[in-house]
Amino acid sequence: MSSTQGGAEPIAVVGSVAFDTLETPHGRADDELGGAATHFAVAASFFAPVALVAPIGDDFPQAALAYLAERGIDCTGLERRAGKTFRWHGRYHEDMNKRDTLHLDLGVFATFAPTVHEAIRRAPYLFLGNIDPVLQRSVLEQFASPRLVGLDTMNHWIAEARAPLEALLSRVDILVINDEEARELSGEDNIVRAARRILGYGARSIIVKRGEYGAILFSPESVFAVPAFPLERVFDPTGAGDTFAGGMMGHLAATGDVSHANLRRAIVYGTVLASFVVEDFGGRRMRTLDRDAIEQRYRQFVALTTF
Amino acid sequence: MSSTQGGAEPIAVVGSVAFDTLETPHGRADDELGGAATHFAVAASFFAPVALVAPIGDDFPQAALAYLAERGIDCTGLERRAGKTFRWHGRYHEDMNKRDTLHLDLGVFATFAPTVHEAIRRAPYLFLGNIDPVLQRSVLEQFASPRLVGLDTMNHWIAEARAPLEALLSRVDILVINDEEARELSGEDNIVRAARRILGYGARSIIVKRGEYGAILFSPESVFAVPAFPLERVFDPTGAGDTFAGGMMGHLAATGDVSHANLRRAIVYGTVLASFVVEDFGGRRMRTLDRDAIEQRYRQFVALTTF
Repeated sequence: MSSTQGGAEPIAVVGSVAFDTLETPHGRADDELGGAATHFAVAASFFAPVALVAPIGDDFPQAALAYLAERGIDCTGLERRAGKTFRWHGRYHEDMNKRDTLHLDLGVFATFAPTVHEAIRRAPYLFLGNIDPVLQRSVLEQFASPRLVGLDTMNHWIAEARAPLEALLSRVDILVINDEEARELSGEDNIVRAARRILGYGARSIIVKRGEYGAILFSPESVFAVPAFPLERVFDPTGAGDTFAGGMMGHLAATGDVSHANLRRAIVYGTVLASFVVEDFGGRRMRTLDRDAIEQRYRQFVALTTF
Repeated sequence: MSSTQGGAEPIAVVGSVAFDTLETPHGRADDELGGAATHFAVAASFFAPVALVAPIGDDFPQAALAYLAERGIDCTGLERRAGKTFRWHGRYHEDMNKRDTLHLDLGVFATFAPTVHEAIRRAPYLFLGNIDPVLQRSVLEQFASPRLVGLDTMNHWIAEARAPLEALLSRVDILVINDEEARELSGEDNIVRAARRILGYGARSIIVKRGEYGAILFSPESVFAVPAFPLERVFDPTGAGDTFAGGMMGHLAATGDVSHANLRRAIVYGTVLASFVVEDFGGRRMRTLDRDAIEQRYRQFVALTTF
């Protein structure tokens, strides 16, 4: 099955594949297929061919591989190793902007040092998921000449690996981080000043994700802001940011157009995809999603924001 | 001096006129002309004739009256009484979404029971600022047949005067509240469900203000969301919500068009006006603002949100 657009260019994503146990005010789900790279890949697969580069343990079930393959995701970059797949157990508060990690077992992800297959190295779109910036750099250097490079990171790397992270930013087209990370990376409380400073580090553009409040794109010449799609129920926010990034990069790769105007539309697609994934536990909602539903909600988003 | 548009229809606003002592992370200002109705009236005065109905003490200075008159604001509804003008002293946290009231003296506002002049009662646009819902109702009943009624309230009245507040909502075209108030009024955490429930109480539409994150309009048939205008520095948030409401109602009255499409544009004008008032203490920034700067930022807002 292929649900991608004709002419779409391939995207490679490097990061984590995991099994998540999720507790939200709405209930609990055990051992849901998750991980940042998975959420990204599944979202992007609605738009373009995706190659997923991540480590999996010898416990990784065939059914999960079959699902990824069914979504047209190239799994040849999944490196199966002796040991366990990354596992995370999180519990969200009543205010689902807050969560606690109850258990974390990196498993085979702890020693991940990706060597990317030759075929995948030719992908013109590369998303460096949230891993050690030293590894992100090593992956980037394996790619011949990617047309567009996206990067995610987290507070841990900002605090512990600031030098390699900053050095990487000048090679990044789109940094995708949340508002708290933007503040920590820049040392600025105000999100506009934070973004200006991070642009000064060399990133060509920055998308600041603000959860239920939407996202802002900062580039040297322009700012673009979108609200989130208002939902009557956010069931489980897990994977929303990664799904946003996947939808966004997916649209760019699908159209082969990396102009600023198209990046704005890509951010709306990212917003739309994120609005679906939070409707059920983990990535469950994506299993029943199709391109028609995406386009319908994109049109609803236009109606939501037009004045 | 008149800076309003030709053909604009009059707006009446009822509420508080005050002097504020303001402490923010950026400094301190003493005895700034403030109060919700003042902020509303000044913002609306850039668009339409405004009549301000509020009590002032015998300490209210001529210079403040002169400023309001200079902005074209009809001050015949300012009821001067023996006693002090409402005074508030607030201190914002580093996170300026939080503030503490250090001192509050209602003065003549404590016994405010407005009787509106005949001339003002004919205003087709009426904004019922944040006062006791029983008084809001009494004011509303003094107006012959207002074309559009806006209403503000606060947590205090939601908790202490819920019955008269709910009864009032069926006579209100636009309820303007913040997200916390929407949650308290509805008993719903999720803002979409909160708004649906409040629409069920009878309000024709609800604008939920989300501070630095923008605003959402809910009406039975449509939802409209805007981000806030991103600013490098929020100097003092005092009056932002009231200024938003004033800009919004001002545009409606200026155009005489209360259609849903125009309400969306009005919300953008409200957003633009609010983005100015936070640039300096209290209402200082409004003293140097002009219509050209408003229109310029409106165009910037279009550029900010177009995709």
